[in-house]
Amino acid sequence: MDIRTHLGINQELSGKPVKVAEGYAEVLLKTQESMKADDKGLVHGGFIFSAADYASMLAVNHPNVVLAGANVKFLKPVKVGDEIICKARVSEDKGKKKKVLVECFKGEDKVFEGEFFTVFLIDMFWRGEKMEVKPFYWKGDKLLLLDQRKLPHQEVWLELKTYEEVAKAIKEMAVRGAPAIGCTAAYGFVLGVKVQKEDPEKVYETLKNTRPTAYNLFWALDRMMKALKEGKDIEEEAKEIEKEDYEANKRMGEIGSEIVPLNAKVLTHCNTGALATAGWGTALGVIRSAHYGGKNIFVWVDETRPYLQGARLTAWELVKESIPHKIITDSTAGFLMKKGMVDLVIVGADRITAKGDVANKIGTYTLAVLCKEHNVPFYVAAPTSTIDSNIKSGEEIIIEERSPEEVKVCGGCAIAPKESDALHLAFDITPAELITGIITEKGIFKPERITEALKD
Amino acid sequence: MDIRTHLGINQELSGKPVKVAEGYAEVLLKTQESMKADDKGLVHGGFIFSAADYASMLAVNHPNVVLAGANVKFLKPVKVGDEIICKARVSEDKGKKKKVLVECFKGEDKVFEGEFFTVFLIDMFWRGEKMEVKPFYWKGDKLLLLDQRKLPHQEVWLELKTYEEVAKAIKEMAVRGAPAIGCTAAYGFVLGVKVQKEDPEKVYETLKNTRPTAYNLFWALDRMMKALKEGKDIEEEAKEIEKEDYEANKRMGEIGSEIVPLNAKVLTHCNTGALATAGWGTALGVIRSAHYGGKNIFVWVDETRPYLQGARLTAWELVKESIPHKIITDSTAGFLMKKGMVDLVIVGADRITAKGDVANKIGTYTLAVLCKEHNVPFYVAAPTSTIDSNIKSGEEIIIEERSPEEVKVCGGCAIAPKESDALHLAFDITPAELITGIITEKGIFKPERITEALKD
Repeated sequence: MDIRTHLGINQELSGKPVKVAEGYAEVLLKTQESMKADDKGLVHGGFIFSAADYASMLAVNHPNVVLAGANVKFLKPVKVGDEIICKARVSEDKGKKKKVLVECFKGEDKVFEGEFFTVFLIDMFWRGEKMEVKPFYWKGDKLLLLDQRKLPHQEVWLELKTYEEVAKAIKEMAVRGAPAIGCTAAYGFVLGVKVQKEDPEKVYETLKNTRPTAYNLFWALDRMMKALKEGKDIEEEAKEIEKEDYEANKRMGEIGSEIVPLNAKVLTHCNTGALATAGWGTALGVIRSAHYGGKNIFVWVDETRPYLQGARLTAWELVKESIPHKIITDSTAGFLMKKGMVDLVIVGADRITAKGDVANKIGTYTLAVLCKEHNVPFYVAAPTSTIDSNIKSGEEIIIEERSPEEVKVCGGCAIAPKESDALHLAFDITPAELITGIITEKGIFKPERITEALKD
Repeated sequence: MDIRTHLGINQELSGKPVKVAEGYAEVLLKTQESMKADDKGLVHGGFIFSAADYASMLAVNHPNVVLAGANVKFLKPVKVGDEIICKARVSEDKGKKKKVLVECFKGEDKVFEGEFFTVFLIDMFWRGEKMEVKPFYWKGDKLLLLDQRKLPHQEVWLELKTYEEVAKAIKEMAVRGAPAIGCTAAYGFVLGVKVQKEDPEKVYETLKNTRPTAYNLFWALDRMMKALKEGKDIEEEAKEIEKEDYEANKRMGEIGSEIVPLNAKVLTHCNTGALATAGWGTALGVIRSAHYGGKNIFVWVDETRPYLQGARLTAWELVKESIPHKIITDSTAGFLMKKGMVDLVIVGADRITAKGDVANKIGTYTLAVLCKEHNVPFYVAAPTSTIDSNIKSGEEIIIEERSPEEVKVCGGCAIAPKESDALHLAFDITPAELITGIITEKGIFKPERITEALKD
């Protein structure tokens, strides 16, 4: 079994793994001069503990496992030169929390035993700034925006200083994902009204007319306009929108990971991760939370033609965080379900109607039909800012039809005869009856009861 | 309404269209000196007929409509300088055959009337060599093979002089499509055994081990081996296989086009056209026959990731023959069905089992599930050489798993993080119960009765 945790440990000081299996590990510690506690050559207890701790980590063998506590006994003294073998076995598994029993032996003699309580690092931000995936940064007088069209090959940051530049970036999909579009538009409003001193109505209209389907865009702009009229500091309002979205995602992740089995092959579509939001993500946020919560997650990544948000962006996020995954073409999902290789589908949403119909990336509807055929749960994860209670049914949603040329190109390569036309629907509608549940920051709702999530 | 026929006509001599509508057209002929029949300035009847003929063609307005016969009366003389308006209306529509009534007037006076009987050019080969789409040509000592990986941007012909080169071309997908693979392998066998004088068993095994799923490959090689053992001329046998495949396709097209409605939006997957066969095609052959048979066909072309056989090859064939079509991403089909925009799905097959399960390009199974959900007929078109009566169920078929790198590239462009893995299943299995019917050169069969097609 591959070792997946504590890859940077000093094995001279904490021992070498000699066996790693499902829920079990053995570590061999060769004690040495540097470990002695006194002149008699007695080994300091901390090194025994360190080896036992390492063995407990390997028994769990998850990239993000850490020790929360331990209850240990040192039974016999160990001297420099002794070889100690520590045997660790997972004895209780409550998903995020596990108990590992460890015994250490010198030959036949047991020298140490203990219970080790392990947990998982739930927040990737704890692991340092370099892991943070975020699609934009507000800098007071400009917005830094990661150009997602260039990923995964290049990380190019755009410096947007005017609301017109922000509108162009949204329209041309340098930024995408309904919540990220909402936040970006809010900062675009700040640039237009506070920095450029332009007519708020004009700024509002320009930003609003960039994409027709994502409800968070209209929601964020309406909220900015309201704040302006109420005399609030609109820059603070935009920051508040960003902060709320991030926190909603984190709550959604916590809430949603409850429905993810301990061992789960999860299929997702498009990108709904940190890149699609103010951070963490919606559907991918749930997957992320389940992973960091200690569940054994494998992700099937729909490549998501034509823009390849799955192959380019979701895979990029998963690579950054070492979450196991494989990319598949969009037409593969059905056969995988037929073969029992998908336990759960989770997708995001661009708009949710009052009766629980969901507009999302083209291909979502097909996945929902396939889930029905194969009895696979089909969940939508989206913050309440995605709910458009003004419209009842999905039939009322305008489906953005984009340029056929975007279908005739793939990853920058022309793939079709120039004489051929193509149809490029950016979204489709999944009716409420095909949806198992909608995960929001307020809880999980049956689609037909989604408006309850809007009540305080 | 756009004019779709007789685009090269001389309108000075046959008149100018002044109205073209569904089943109706008007043509205005300004008669001139060059049309006179005698010194009195009488216009030669042929020119009136020509204008009436042109009007009848425009009333049908199909790229391949031609005149089969006419029953006409010249009622009054026409003189040079007269303006004649010809009004044509389709009065009987039997699909391939239509009757058009035409009346021509000089002012109020009717000068001509007639019945025009129109038909359709059924065979694209009638329209001249340049229209012929064929993936290979046997040249006696070598096989010319169109490198389909280069289409639609380049037409590159490979000159294959050894069976090893043929095996490589099959393995690396320069040629694809089960019937075309079968024919190519047969000529590869001729090169190896007759030209190179190699051990037949070795040639057989090398060619057989190129692709695992296409049954026509094994069928063709077994037949070649049998011919060799019976002392037949194996070159003639290979030519016979090619000829039979072409003729089977033409029969399949005729038979299959019966199930295509007069006005049909047909969705197809992968490439099953002339490029996938010895010419004409299987599923695309049915579509082609329906089109040339005078039906009003529109084709939704699934792009068919990862190899894009739809966007690259099917679209290329349809462009060559001016058959109306649009390319869509594979994830779009479901939503189009939901919106009632697909009347029929027809796909090909790589192998058909005794109980009627079908192995075909990955994504076929998903289409079949979507058809079930939306009550859209789902047909498979394949020659009987695709039927493997040795195996009963689809579960026994080996599904070719190809390199993940082929998913991580699209049209030559890298589209995913290099660290990400991908799953590349080349085929899937559609169970018999999801298939409306299987179209063969022997007739249309219910899948569970497909082995009846093998009886003489």
